[in-house]
Order: sequence, then structure tokens, then C-alpha cells
Amino acid sequence: MIKVFGHKAPDTDSTGSPIIWAWYLSEVRKTPAQAVLQGEPNTEAAWMLAKWGLDQPQIIADVAPGEQCVVVDTNNPAELPDSLAEADVIEIIDHHLLAGGIRTRLPINITIRPLACTATIMHDLIGDEDLARAPRAIKGAMLTCILSDTLEFRSPTTTPHDRFVAEKLAKDLGVSIPEYAAEMFAAKSDVSAFTEEALLRMDSKEYELGGKQLRVSVLETTAPQVLLDRKAALMAAMPAVAAADGADEVLLFIVDILNEEATLLVPNDFVRQVAEKSFNATVSGDSVVLPGVMSRKKQIIPALAV
Amino acid sequence: MIKVFGHKAPDTDSTGSPIIWAWYLSEVRKTPAQAVLQGEPNTEAAWMLAKWGLDQPQIIADVAPGEQCVVVDTNNPAELPDSLAEADVIEIIDHHLLAGGIRTRLPINITIRPLACTATIMHDLIGDEDLARAPRAIKGAMLTCILSDTLEFRSPTTTPHDRFVAEKLAKDLGVSIPEYAAEMFAAKSDVSAFTEEALLRMDSKEYELGGKQLRVSVLETTAPQVLLDRKAALMAAMPAVAAADGADEVLLFIVDILNEEATLLVPNDFVRQVAEKSFNATVSGDSVVLPGVMSRKKQIIPALAV
Repeated sequence: MIKVFGHKAPDTDSTGSPIIWAWYLSEVRKTPAQAVLQGEPNTEAAWMLAKWGLDQPQIIADVAPGEQCVVVDTNNPAELPDSLAEADVIEIIDHHLLAGGIRTRLPINITIRPLACTATIMHDLIGDEDLARAPRAIKGAMLTCILSDTLEFRSPTTTPHDRFVAEKLAKDLGVSIPEYAAEMFAAKSDVSAFTEEALLRMDSKEYELGGKQLRVSVLETTAPQVLLDRKAALMAAMPAVAAADGADEVLLFIVDILNEEATLLVPNDFVRQVAEKSFNATVSGDSVVLPGVMSRKKQIIPALAV
Repeated sequence: MIKVFGHKAPDTDSTGSPIIWAWYLSEVRKTPAQAVLQGEPNTEAAWMLAKWGLDQPQIIADVAPGEQCVVVDTNNPAELPDSLAEADVIEIIDHHLLAGGIRTRLPINITIRPLACTATIMHDLIGDEDLARAPRAIKGAMLTCILSDTLEFRSPTTTPHDRFVAEKLAKDLGVSIPEYAAEMFAAKSDVSAFTEEALLRMDSKEYELGGKQLRVSVLETTAPQVLLDRKAALMAAMPAVAAADGADEVLLFIVDILNEEATLLVPNDFVRQVAEKSFNATVSGDSVVLPGVMSRKKQIIPALAV
């Protein structure tokens, strides 16, 4: 049984895309495959599963030697199972930069596209004819992944093709995108159940800058004030989270989906310096608003400087 | 101007595919692109250029910092320009194993497929509608690349899809595949103009085995006796070629296209041991015939053991 999985700390695309591709491999290509997760799905991903009546995929801790794997929504070994190099990676579908850490023993299928969402790439690979046979839940997962990764087309990662595919799927499913996205973002924005530590790790990527190891964390929300009210507690939790995760600093960007801006918390002089050098910002207090910044991939990571 | 290139020591696919893709980028996508070569094209590639009236692409020694590049028919930094890491790689199209050495700063288009030939992948990416606008020479290059990489469908790397595409192109062009391939292989098999050193380097890839750096060279021919008559001189040239190229040993496989077998030259005990361990062969003299072996990628490299 082929295992299909995305990155650690699975978000909506890393939960939905494995489900979509496992359906395609099993039902269309007739090669039995199973979607699995590397950790609990985040709030929005769990909402998607409930919304479309999809079972939560099994959570795996690692892969076995020789096990057939399809890697989606990442190609970065740091976000993948520890034993991936001993497994048999048979396909990669992704929309991130080439991290350069995966090698294969034979030629395999690799499809990386500069689109906003892995599910958009899968839509294209599957093709209209086979997609017509997909259950509503598979098309619903596809739509949800695209609306999540594009922040309902607000993120600068959005391409006309992502939008075209989402609108086609919504029409097919009879879903109103504005209503559906509002419901999805409301679900994602309810973070009352999470500790500060969990919030700092919820959507976080490692990045090295000037010899320092950073955790670059992003929280996308339609209710930023709920998070800003916990600013002191979030900053107080940063040193312990960084230390436990082998990082030097945590950068937390609270992305306001509706107002299309990010607030970066500034707990110390290092982060203040990063904010000023990277975003040409003037920092006066313990946070700074960055107008228009919504995408870690397109606006934050490429800008980071110290 | 985007530069499109394949691997060093360009064979037919690494000469033809850049020409095909530069045509597509320039004429269909309207993004000006130029095919270039990393070295003189081999005999068969030069024959293809003459046959279809294509200009020989300019030979480059390196790429410039920030220069936009499309890498085709390889993803291995050892086969690419020294300064590639400083250039701007915007796309990769390949059919080899993922070597793991290229990183990108942003997400780009990467298409790797386990097909016999880069040109087959390009055929699929271009699509029937745009391919209909291609000049005969572009379709001719595509057909030649596929017949070359598949050894007219004899190589075990051949997939039904490679064959389907080649037959479609041949029909469209009014070309008889058996006649065309025979003419092409005859051109390739005329090696009288080459020194032993040039022959050992003509189609060669680096590979590490048991702590030794190998040059794994393949000569595909319909006239193996011409090469076997030069066996002593070829073996005598190996130590100097290996030393000059920073390798420990040269493995030379003479692939008999028509009889579907390879002859490995055995100049010393190390190569004899490799032959016995890798191919379960019994070596008595200074060469050994390996029935059915035609593909470095599929049959030689994966089998190599010591």
C-alpha cells in the first residue's frame, strides 16, 4: 500500500492533498494508496475533514525501509519522516522551492509548479475526464485547499490558474466561495483551545539567517485581536519553544486575512533588527504592522535579512 | 534571453531538447529563449542537426550570475555549468534520478518523468495544439531524440508512451522509423575520426562505487567490431583519462544496438570484480559480454557493486 503524505504540522493543503492523490492512485490508476498525516491536522484542516465527511487519515511517526511513498506539498527533508532516505519515494508533487535534500535511486515522477496550492497541480495532473468521476468530498477537499492556500485569492501567491480551478470546482459543487471561505476562516480563527506553545508551532517553518536558526511562524486569522490580546504570553513562550525545538528565535507573524496585513511580534532587539532590515519597517513598541504582507513563501522568507 | 541547455558532452537528447524547448518558449510562450550546448555535440547529434537543417547551438563555457536558465535532460550539478548556483534556474525538465544537488530560491517549474527521453516529456508539456504549429525540424528533432534514447525502442528504458509519441511524429513527418534509425545509427557508429581518449569521454557519467570514483562510459553502435578492434588501445588510454578527469577507473561498455548486448572491457582486477559482482558474469579474458544490457540508467548504474 503506497503511503501519501505532506509536511509535518499538517495544514489544510498537507491534509487534503494526500487524500486527493490517494483517491486518484487507488480509484483511477488502480494502485492502492493511503493518505497519512505527520501529526494532528490543524483547526482548519480538521474543519475541512468534518465538512466533507472525510475520515481523518492515520497519523504516522515514520516510514519503513523500502516503503513506497508519495511526498506532496513539500520536498524538504526537515519536514519529512526521519527515515525517508531508506524508503522508496515514487513521486513528488509540490509547489515550494527545491530544497535539494531528496535523492532518488531511479527516475520518478516529480511535478513542482509555482502555483499557490498542491491541490491545483493535482487538478491538472488528474485531468477533467478522471476528475468527473471524483466524489464530492474529493472535489470539496480540492476547493478547500486552494481557498486556504490563497486566503480566498488574497495572498500574492495566488495565480490566475489557482483562481480558475477553485471557481470551476465551486460551480460544480454548488458552493458560494465567499460564504464557504468565511465559514472556513472563522473555524481557523478560533484559537481559544490552543496554548501559546501550540500556536507558535502551529504553522511554522525552519529557516537559517545570519548563522541563527529561526522558526518562522505564521497564524492566518480573520480575528487578529484575539491573538494580539495574548501578545505578552506568546512572547513569553518564545524562548522555551525555540530552545526545545533547537532554534535561536521564533518570528511570529499574525496575518490579518481580511485587512491583508501582518503583525510581527518583536520580543527583542534581534527581531527588531530583522523587521527593520527585511521589511524596511520602523519599530517602536513590541510589534510592527507590515501592510500587504500575507505570504511566508513569497513575501517573508525571500525578504528576511539581518 | 533565457538560456536552455542539457548536460556536458551533449548527446542527441541534450542537443535536441534544448532546441525544442527554446522554440516553445520563444514562439509559443513568447519568452525569448536560446538553446546552447556545453561542448561539441556528439556524432549522432551533429547528424541530427544536419539532417533537419538546424543550426548548431552556441557552445557555452559557463553561465553568468543571475542569468535565466532552463536545465533539461539532467539535474546533476556535476553535469552542469560551474556557476549554476549563482544563475537563476527557472525550469527543469528531465528523465533522470533526482541527484539532489540543485536548490532554488523560489518555487519553479520542475517536471521529471520516468520516460526514456526528455523530448517525450516536452511533447506532453507542449500539447497537440501548439505542437501542430511546430516546424518540421522541431518535430524531427523530437523524433530523433526519442529514437536515440530508446535505441529504436530496444532499450529497456523505452515506455509505451515514448513509442507512441515517436510513431505519431514519424507518421506526421512521413518518416519510416526503421530506415531513419538505421541511417542514424550508421552515422553514430562511424567513430573512425575519434581518438581513444575522445571515445572514452564521449558518453560518460561519473559514479562513486565503494569509495572509488568511476567514469561509466557507454558507446552505442551497430558496428561493435570496429571498437573491439581498438580494444587494446582503448584500455591503454584508460589510466591517463581517469587521472586527467579525477577518476579512479573507467568502465567502458560497448553496446551492440542490433544484438542487444554490451561488451565491458576488463583492463584490471578491479573491473573484473565489478563485472562479476554487478552482472553475475564470469570473466575469463579482457572483456565480457553482458547479454541484454543496453541502458546505463536502468541496467548498469543500479547494478554496480564491488
